[in-house]
Amino acid sequence: MGELSGYRGDALKFLKDAGASIGDVVELRTGWGTVSGTLVPRYLYGDGEHVVLKLKSGYNVGLSLSGVKDARVVSKGEKPSFAPLPPPKSAGGLPKVLILGTGGTIASRVDYRTGAVRPASTAAELHALVPELSGIARVQPEVVFEVFSENMAPAHWAKLARRAARGADEGFDGVVITHGTDTLGYTAAALSFALAGAPIPVILVGSQRSSDRPSSDAPLNLVAAVTVAATAHFSGVYVAMHLNESDDKVAFHRGTRVRKDHTSRRDAFESIGVPLAAVFGRDGLEFVAEGLPPRGGKFRPRPKFDPRVALLKFYPSMPAGAVRGASRLGARALVIEGTGLGHVSKEVAGELGRFVKAGGLAFMASQCIRGRVDLSVYDTGRDLLHAGVVPLGDMLPETALAKAMWVLGTGASGKRAKEMMAADVAGETTARTFPG
Amino acid sequence: MGELSGYRGDALKFLKDAGASIGDVVELRTGWGTVSGTLVPRYLYGDGEHVVLKLKSGYNVGLSLSGVKDARVVSKGEKPSFAPLPPPKSAGGLPKVLILGTGGTIASRVDYRTGAVRPASTAAELHALVPELSGIARVQPEVVFEVFSENMAPAHWAKLARRAARGADEGFDGVVITHGTDTLGYTAAALSFALAGAPIPVILVGSQRSSDRPSSDAPLNLVAAVTVAATAHFSGVYVAMHLNESDDKVAFHRGTRVRKDHTSRRDAFESIGVPLAAVFGRDGLEFVAEGLPPRGGKFRPRPKFDPRVALLKFYPSMPAGAVRGASRLGARALVIEGTGLGHVSKEVAGELGRFVKAGGLAFMASQCIRGRVDLSVYDTGRDLLHAGVVPLGDMLPETALAKAMWVLGTGASGKRAKEMMAADVAGETTARTFPG
Repeated sequence: MGELSGYRGDALKFLKDAGASIGDVVELRTGWGTVSGTLVPRYLYGDGEHVVLKLKSGYNVGLSLSGVKDARVVSKGEKPSFAPLPPPKSAGGLPKVLILGTGGTIASRVDYRTGAVRPASTAAELHALVPELSGIARVQPEVVFEVFSENMAPAHWAKLARRAARGADEGFDGVVITHGTDTLGYTAAALSFALAGAPIPVILVGSQRSSDRPSSDAPLNLVAAVTVAATAHFSGVYVAMHLNESDDKVAFHRGTRVRKDHTSRRDAFESIGVPLAAVFGRDGLEFVAEGLPPRGGKFRPRPKFDPRVALLKFYPSMPAGAVRGASRLGARALVIEGTGLGHVSKEVAGELGRFVKAGGLAFMASQCIRGRVDLSVYDTGRDLLHAGVVPLGDMLPETALAKAMWVLGTGASGKRAKEMMAADVAGETTARTFPG
Repeated sequence: MGELSGYRGDALKFLKDAGASIGDVVELRTGWGTVSGTLVPRYLYGDGEHVVLKLKSGYNVGLSLSGVKDARVVSKGEKPSFAPLPPPKSAGGLPKVLILGTGGTIASRVDYRTGAVRPASTAAELHALVPELSGIARVQPEVVFEVFSENMAPAHWAKLARRAARGADEGFDGVVITHGTDTLGYTAAALSFALAGAPIPVILVGSQRSSDRPSSDAPLNLVAAVTVAATAHFSGVYVAMHLNESDDKVAFHRGTRVRKDHTSRRDAFESIGVPLAAVFGRDGLEFVAEGLPPRGGKFRPRPKFDPRVALLKFYPSMPAGAVRGASRLGARALVIEGTGLGHVSKEVAGELGRFVKAGGLAFMASQCIRGRVDLSVYDTGRDLLHAGVVPLGDMLPETALAKAMWVLGTGASGKRAKEMMAADVAGETTARTFPG
């Protein structure tokens, strides 16, 4: 971490000239008096004009350089400790947002004494990290569990879904879930089904750069997520991540239509096959898609998942035994990523037929990601249809996996399970509108 | 198939008014005399101004409406038969192009007597289908095998590679391979390795609409592929497919960097992580990337593939047994599509470690498709590195699969195989240039 993390432009130069580093107690002389406090990193909108000090009271103050005459380092080296602070007095009228932590890096903070990165687990810590939140909502952060994104499993989805559903019962205006980005799309899809019809917005938010890095996307994503959770007129499950590489807009993707399509960019997430649900900019929501469900209404969560579903990506020379292997490992349903319109080799098709005959469920999505499966165009597809393979239209394979686990989790099987998979539950599939 | 397939605008109206259908013998009166012939479908550049007749000689003639006074249907209903025709007298100076058919639909034609779609297997048939070819090159079409794209396997890759390599020896200026689009990307990657250093261009070409449909992309793709194979100054393996939804430009993608990213669009193929290699428009090549290998040079094909490689896409709750299962089915190497920077769950990571310890090779790519794997950022990645998993940078998983089969096919194993996988052979991976 740099000594002047997050500062740029004139502010960076000004602090360098004064010999100040993050953690120093600094005294700034202004036209209206002298302010002293601990120099803290800038997290949001590092505009090159402001210096931020943490005052003895625990509150941060941002000072515009235009009013500062000079700076003096009072004492060096004392890194700011982020010991729990009293939460800011909450304005009674602000909406209430439940923030659920899962161990992702978004709301983590560096403890300057130990160097450890720790998730912010209290409202005060969150506020210390992203002071802007206090003007938006009364937030209640909870760590539901601490799990790396790649270790997230259906049991975690269920736990999150139950806690979010209870949040709606408890009168929260919205729920924000911080989550590692690796499997954020899978979890968003899973929650979309478990929480279908929820009366409030549930926003999953991640970051591609941890929040102690000056280039972090975490603060803006979190501000956007909390703002939308608190105030948006729509409900449903969404993913909030940077719209582009600039740090000024956040895209809201439908939970069933989003995919991590880049390993490292801040705008790694893409909506596939549908427009964005919303875009959040400096002045709030700049765009909201039509047709999003309104807030309110009756709601019965269905937070159960049966993990006995396997995702198999087809490839040239894939052995037919791969299907038998998944079956032997206990899979009751398979989601196949076929080629093109939803094809697999003759050998694999034959094996899928046997799997279905033995009572298994086989669903076809496409490894093309974009477009839709169509098993009626070529002989190979028609053979798969005859064998009982169910085409999933334009459903993303990852979404199909989460959905199949959810469908089985509801207790459905056989014909009923197939019908549930093919029908739209949470915007995951659209009717065909164009023959191409 | 419509009765006036491929016609539009004035030409369509003109023919409708005359009561003419495809296959009718039609007499057109022009300022310079009367022409009669069988009305044939338009394949390329259906510009709304021309009518195309097949003359008794077997040649097609295109007549501009501006010169046509009227039309008369001489005899109805005799659909044009595409009986073999004498090939057009080849201009001795034209380049020679070998066209290898694999059973894809691109060069197929409808037999109007039987309704069957059959691949064009002689030069004459190809010319009948795409008359423009005769002005570009002396083409020699051969059907190497007839296999649906989804049934294509490493043995087919090897056969194609051997035939293409022999084509270079035989003095062909270029090779064009027509191929179904489903697994076109996999085959292109495989040939890129088997034919690395080839002295001539090898162009794989497909179509998303079969060539008897008026909206077919087949003729333009084929014209572009043959033109580039015949005349381009560069060598290497490329995929030629529509650049966009308009029927006027064809993109050339590097064989190791191309992916079918849409199930049905004509511009379904995308170059990932690199610019296009070239763009072909109405006036020939409009753009050629820098750094493509020149024609010529010594060349030793390595057309062997070992199919004992499995591609496993990781997903939440993937059972560790999936790794054991692939191993039991004979896999000597695994290509894993991890999440994000290349992660898998703790359970799967442990199993990969055991697979490597037992002598297997494990390679990590990302299901994000874009960006690059980096196993040095998080603990999970570092654990995978320690376990002997080899990160593949920005190599596409599908390309990695073909490459691993090729690497094993060369006889390499152990450390040598790992080194070959990580090093760039045919543009499949680039050095890291940007930390993000």
